[in-house]
Amino acid sequence: MARWEPNARERLQRSALELFGERGYEQTTVEDIASRAGLTKRTFFRHFADKREVLFDRTDELVDLMATTIAEAPADAAPIDAIAAAAEAAAALIEERSDLSRARQRVIAASTELRERELVKFASMADRVHAALSERGVPEPDAELVAEAGITVLRVAYERWSGDDDGPPLPEVVRSAMATLRGVAASA
Amino acid sequence: MARWEPNARERLQRSALELFGERGYEQTTVEDIASRAGLTKRTFFRHFADKREVLFDRTDELVDLMATTIAEAPADAAPIDAIAAAAEAAAALIEERSDLSRARQRVIAASTELRERELVKFASMADRVHAALSERGVPEPDAELVAEAGITVLRVAYERWSGDDDGPPLPEVVRSAMATLRGVAASA
Repeated sequence: MARWEPNARERLQRSALELFGERGYEQTTVEDIASRAGLTKRTFFRHFADKREVLFDRTDELVDLMATTIAEAPADAAPIDAIAAAAEAAAALIEERSDLSRARQRVIAASTELRERELVKFASMADRVHAALSERGVPEPDAELVAEAGITVLRVAYERWSGDDDGPPLPEVVRSAMATLRGVAASA
Repeated sequence: MARWEPNARERLQRSALELFGERGYEQTTVEDIASRAGLTKRTFFRHFADKREVLFDRTDELVDLMATTIAEAPADAAPIDAIAAAAEAAAALIEERSDLSRARQRVIAASTELRERELVKFASMADRVHAALSERGVPEPDAELVAEAGITVLRVAYERWSGDDDGPPLPEVVRSAMATLRGVAASA
């Protein structure tokens, strides 16, 4: 087999998501995934540490983008506006590959283990975003609460978006969820 | 041994928290816990399904209280006020046994597995509180976002409170965190 495997990573992801959808996550092996993609197990492990990682490999990219967006927000931007911009940037990145993202979310929703892993990933995103707000000089407990609220909005919007194939694009769902949170928080 | 074991449940919890603090959670067995409490393993298993459950047995009680508080809030109360009242009621219950609650939180903070379990418990609390808001007729996505935001406030306040032995009581920390969230959400 040739060493040159264009798009091996994405081919493996698509094959994995197809198989998880057809047979279930538990019933699919790394061997199955590699074989469906026309690649070897060895190639799989050059790209992913394990089967689960196929589903969570974009977390770092998303959180780096959010941290950068917060760092680059105008100096006079309110913390809530910085986090809103970060959540929308992450949403735009997810939307770029919306078919994979929706398929991914269906797999996660069907497994308790994966739903728990997803919660842990969102919690680590909140920690990173919290740190980015602190670096902007946002005091406590504001920085932590804004970070947690922003990640909550992203998570709720993402779940709603992936459950509705005919709905608006994710950045719009995030914007609208953020507006809803601000509206209900302001009511008395 | 006599069958009459006054406060067996609380004695087991105190012994467990002492041992988890002294030796670590992983290094403590159910046998150790029962023996420290002067009780048998059998008695332990009459009260708890396993070692981990000692740390999470109050979740149901807390979430029942929150759901009741939401159901009983005045008909014209805003959703955010209903959830704030629920979070404060839960906080008051935790504060009643603040020494155990703080010891518990230290054990959880030291273990990745337990921190993950705690996230899952908070997520299930959010689902329950969400349902209670829906039953009041709060529309979507407001009900879900208010529920998630309220549980986030409770979680952040609880972590801060348990890390500060000399700070204000938990209901006050919750009230202040909720005010912070509302303040930052209102800023533009």
